Amino acid sequence: MEFSEAFPVWSDLTGEQQKQLSQAAVLRSFPQGATLHRGDADCTGLLLVRSGRLRAYILSPEGREITLYRLSPPDFCLLSAPCVLHNLHLEVQIESERDTQLWMIPPENYRTLMAQSPCVANYTNEVMASRFSQVIWLLEQILWQKLDRRLADFLLEEADLEGSSHLKITHEAIGRHLGTAREAVTRMLRYFQEEGLVNLSRGAIELADPGRLAQLS
Amino acid sequence: MEFSEAFPVWSDLTGEQQKQLSQAAVLRSFPQGATLHRGDADCTGLLLVRSGRLRAYILSPEGREITLYRLSPPDFCLLSAPCVLHNLHLEVQIESERDTQLWMIPPENYRTLMAQSPCVANYTNEVMASRFSQVIWLLEQILWQKLDRRLADFLLEEADLEGSSHLKITHEAIGRHLGTAREAVTRMLRYFQEEGLVNLSRGAIELADPGRLAQLS
Repeated sequence: MEFSEAFPVWSDLTGEQQKQLSQAAVLRSFPQGATLHRGDADCTGLLLVRSGRLRAYILSPEGREITLYRLSPPDFCLLSAPCVLHNLHLEVQIESERDTQLWMIPPENYRTLMAQSPCVANYTNEVMASRFSQVIWLLEQILWQKLDRRLADFLLEEADLEGSSHLKITHEAIGRHLGTAREAVTRMLRYFQEEGLVNLSRGAIELADPGRLAQLS
Repeated sequence: MEFSEAFPVWSDLTGEQQKQLSQAAVLRSFPQGATLHRGDADCTGLLLVRSGRLRAYILSPEGREITLYRLSPPDFCLLSAPCVLHNLHLEVQIESERDTQLWMIPPENYRTLMAQSPCVANYTNEVMASRFSQVIWLLEQILWQKLDRRLADFLLEEADLEGSSHLKITHEAIGRHLGTAREAVTRMLRYFQEEGLVNLSRGAIELADPGRLAQLS
């Protein structure tokens, strides 16, 4: 995939804007597990995912985590460039969940483009609206949903992202995604196994009955 | 306050845009406790608060509430016009917490303006970034903070909004703001009273020691 194919409002830019943007954007690679961005202090730049997967999460003072959302190609990451928006004050961390290739757009170039082009500004709005909706959904889950539903949701999303019903993931990692203790995840997974929804083995979970999991979620 | 003074990027609009916008915006009044907007299905319009106060909150299927944030003059409300942004899918409710006067801007007019003017589009981005940051902050509070801190935060914010340390608010109303049962609020307020932080009377709370409440928060 070329940058011009991945960047969403490419055809709405002028020739000059296209030239400046493609010169400014840098293709970079990160191995699985790299931390790309650490909260408000950083202004890493805008990230356009070419391959792999990113995870955005928040971190408690004690080091507990909860996943806000994941970004797959060709998703666009704004929160790694908080300096682009004056009112964006949040301590979101971004890490690569897989070996990841992405284009990094310097904040100053993107800011210039947003000021010139209503299309870029409105595209940015749409990305923000989408992430905002995801976070409100997460908040609702945490407030009103029980762990069984959240875990069923997570397993189905994970199977969808991986394209497989055989998930190589530890209970601890699931706990980090859901902001829940490992013990609570293990307890619920064992209950799912007794109900015939999953089969557990060391470091892996097999979705035995995705249909019934979906009913639960 | 006139509309042209309240609308944030007024001076960046063309004469024609100013004319169209001021003709489209309607000044409306709502009594305290009115529901102005009910979630995704509605597209009420953009709201620019002239006086009074709005509250944005989410609602569980069982009718539990939690306050996302409040809007005071001259705050601008986007979430009451989800149709303006394709990717905004959320069931946020808006109510007037005080007798409120506001300008309502029809969604189609605002959408046209966003498409024409980078200033309006970028202003919209800033509003969204600000609300997004507030909701992430709330999520962090719910996940990592204990009720004593959240209650102290709420009481101080309320005193600031009201300009008084004598708050006329019920424990049940505080519970709705914080997404917590009334009983838990009452228990914590009694503990605060024993510690000399507040004085409780029927339907009212007096902040006896705002300094120590601030240390807690």
